[in-house]
Amino acid sequence: MAIEKTIYVGPFIHCESLTELDIAVNGMIGVGEDGKIAFVLRDVEGRQIPAQAGWEQAKVVRTPEYGFFFPGFIDTHIHASQYPNAGVFGKSTLLDWLNTYTFPLESSFSDLEKAARIYNRVVARTLSHGTTMACYYATVHVPATNLLADVCQSKGQRAFVGRVCMDRMSPDYYRDESVESAVTATRQCIDHIRKIDPEFDLVTPIITPRFAPSCTDETLKALGDLHHETGVPCQTHVSENKAECQLVKDLFPHSLSYTHVYDEAGLLTPKTILAHAVHLTKDERALIKQRQAKISHCPASNTALTSGTAKVRTMLDEGLTVGLGTDVSGGYTSSLLAEAREAIFVSRHVAMTDGDDAKLSVEEALYLATRGGAKVVGLEDRIGGFEVGKDWDAQMVSLSNVGDAMHLDQEAGLVEVFGGESWDDKVAKWVYTGDDRNTQAVWVKGKLVHQRAGFKP
Amino acid sequence: MAIEKTIYVGPFIHCESLTELDIAVNGMIGVGEDGKIAFVLRDVEGRQIPAQAGWEQAKVVRTPEYGFFFPGFIDTHIHASQYPNAGVFGKSTLLDWLNTYTFPLESSFSDLEKAARIYNRVVARTLSHGTTMACYYATVHVPATNLLADVCQSKGQRAFVGRVCMDRMSPDYYRDESVESAVTATRQCIDHIRKIDPEFDLVTPIITPRFAPSCTDETLKALGDLHHETGVPCQTHVSENKAECQLVKDLFPHSLSYTHVYDEAGLLTPKTILAHAVHLTKDERALIKQRQAKISHCPASNTALTSGTAKVRTMLDEGLTVGLGTDVSGGYTSSLLAEAREAIFVSRHVAMTDGDDAKLSVEEALYLATRGGAKVVGLEDRIGGFEVGKDWDAQMVSLSNVGDAMHLDQEAGLVEVFGGESWDDKVAKWVYTGDDRNTQAVWVKGKLVHQRAGFKP
Repeated sequence: MAIEKTIYVGPFIHCESLTELDIAVNGMIGVGEDGKIAFVLRDVEGRQIPAQAGWEQAKVVRTPEYGFFFPGFIDTHIHASQYPNAGVFGKSTLLDWLNTYTFPLESSFSDLEKAARIYNRVVARTLSHGTTMACYYATVHVPATNLLADVCQSKGQRAFVGRVCMDRMSPDYYRDESVESAVTATRQCIDHIRKIDPEFDLVTPIITPRFAPSCTDETLKALGDLHHETGVPCQTHVSENKAECQLVKDLFPHSLSYTHVYDEAGLLTPKTILAHAVHLTKDERALIKQRQAKISHCPASNTALTSGTAKVRTMLDEGLTVGLGTDVSGGYTSSLLAEAREAIFVSRHVAMTDGDDAKLSVEEALYLATRGGAKVVGLEDRIGGFEVGKDWDAQMVSLSNVGDAMHLDQEAGLVEVFGGESWDDKVAKWVYTGDDRNTQAVWVKGKLVHQRAGFKP
Repeated sequence: MAIEKTIYVGPFIHCESLTELDIAVNGMIGVGEDGKIAFVLRDVEGRQIPAQAGWEQAKVVRTPEYGFFFPGFIDTHIHASQYPNAGVFGKSTLLDWLNTYTFPLESSFSDLEKAARIYNRVVARTLSHGTTMACYYATVHVPATNLLADVCQSKGQRAFVGRVCMDRMSPDYYRDESVESAVTATRQCIDHIRKIDPEFDLVTPIITPRFAPSCTDETLKALGDLHHETGVPCQTHVSENKAECQLVKDLFPHSLSYTHVYDEAGLLTPKTILAHAVHLTKDERALIKQRQAKISHCPASNTALTSGTAKVRTMLDEGLTVGLGTDVSGGYTSSLLAEAREAIFVSRHVAMTDGDDAKLSVEEALYLATRGGAKVVGLEDRIGGFEVGKDWDAQMVSLSNVGDAMHLDQEAGLVEVFGGESWDDKVAKWVYTGDDRNTQAVWVKGKLVHQRAGFKP
């Protein structure tokens, strides 16, 4: 598992703050055998490697022209099991979407061979998009969920892996039989991951009540107890769709709000990730802030299923912690770059009614995809940016130089640099017209976990 | 220029109506030496070519597994000259966007070498996205506009090519000097195209007043006269942004509406393409319908520049003719497939306030991108679908078969077929997760105008 000491030479870009990028055009980052950043140099002239004691023999990885290093993306909400349905949802909305498309697919993960095929695929694919960490929902099946954890570990992707709990309003063919079985199954998944990754260094189990309507009070409370007993994080959905919000009101008549349902069960803590948060009231946002729970913003899914537009600017202004989630397959894309674009676009729809202040910039969307996500998963000290001591969770991005080339090189992707663009323009072009073809290589904890055909490390 | 008689064997899909796809799984289409469809067979067993008198020696092009033929896309509104700015617009809205990003770039097309580089690029790129026809805005420069026409002809893309007219509210460094010079320059471009393509068979000139605010009454009227004198089509923008609408009110106090400005100038006819149409009143829509003018819907641009959401369902219900436009570079993408996705997503934002009926389906978005576009450009008898006598303007799409492959083939694109998907599902996957990697080959009038590396015709 030892990493070769490596110096990454070339421009690096990461988020300085919510609104500002730090663009170091003549950068150099040394990564040690522990996979951590040992030094960061910003103004290295002529890209010549200055003498660093102990680094004379280090391997060197250089960016190509118009290339740069960028922190790996953090997908704070993705249903790994729903990946084969990406793009298939018709005109459905949340509750009928679950019954028509989602439950039938998820239930088929009793077939381990099928699960292996899909999970290998989704981990490889998200890595190719530069996703170095993902918060996965699996299914109710223990063996398949454990297999997903194994796949993440073997492919080297940082992950939270959650076995889904649901003992109410779920189809007969796909549900937990009892409170006890939901808890027992969750414990089995925690135990498995503890076996393969005792320190939860790369893969961490996450307690995953599907969402309030599909869990009885008792199950929510039992999972809350488990959350406090084990200290492992927790993820669920909140306030995605109006019909769902009404359903929660009906099912939990004694709770003040959807958010209170989780709070009362002990499931609203600094280690809780709440996906969607589209229709939260001011009081709910205040409670979430007080409990220091985190928000996963899923714009593509919220639009696709006509759930609504989450008010990201409001949440940020009120001090909530927000990251991005692809929410495959409510969301059609497994790319967090595409999701950043969707976040920007949805913010413009919010701006059409709430005013210009709602608009998210390219820089802000990239912040949500990296630093924001790191805070959502509670790993802001380890990932999300390039500082000494942080893990090297990074991607090397390369943009095509049009130059005088008349020949279209489709393998180089769709971003075209004509020359004369500022670095800000180049980053904007990447966000709007980039795709996996621009991500040449991806590292997690210093280890190369993905490379494009033709990339020479 | 002779085309080899060819039989295209494999599934073909085109739009039967606004809401329905015609999916012929065992299809076969014969295309003659004139580039026109000579026969269409739907149920050819075992993909064996039945005896067709006179077709024994024809070349055969077969789809790969999960491949299909689809009509070429028709981009009814794209600024070829703005292509280098795709993705670069910050938080601007229309009027400041023009001054900050657009006019400086467009004015640089006095440099023919630069124009050649960009125009070659944009035509090659849009062809690679399956765009067999585009309605281009060029710039005010006659030589560069003529060069764009030459590029379209040499690369074989069907196009309307428009020299932009603007003699008011335009920067000193980039404008028409007078009414006469605007008309003379437009005539020069019409004459050039008449020289290279006398029947306007592939490339057609189009009269292009930028938009009402940048043209004096006199120029609009003179261009209206030219439109009637020459019979060539006309394109402009209408009602894109609220500040722009107010500006038109101020500049044309005697006109009943933005749409009336064009009507009074003789520029609202069956051969007029109006881009955006975001804030039209009911009376304006009625006038457009009466005059049989056409609408180019540009959802990506309307969202990017926070212009608003065009009410496509309303326009369709009222009997207007609607196609899609990428509106590069207000729109970030030059792909009409991506634009179809944006149309679907914007329709969901409309649905959030106006109700579910506003939602566009995958089928409807594809209709707008093909048959709808064909009607917008007045070529519905020649392109947009696969019927005998129509031109073979088509693309061959190929989706990846995941099969048991653990290896990720990024060159095959992002669409993944796991097996068991219906054809409708496969088409939805293409629309939501497809890109130029799925378009293996593109033909216009029977001629191969683009092929992916590795495609064997």
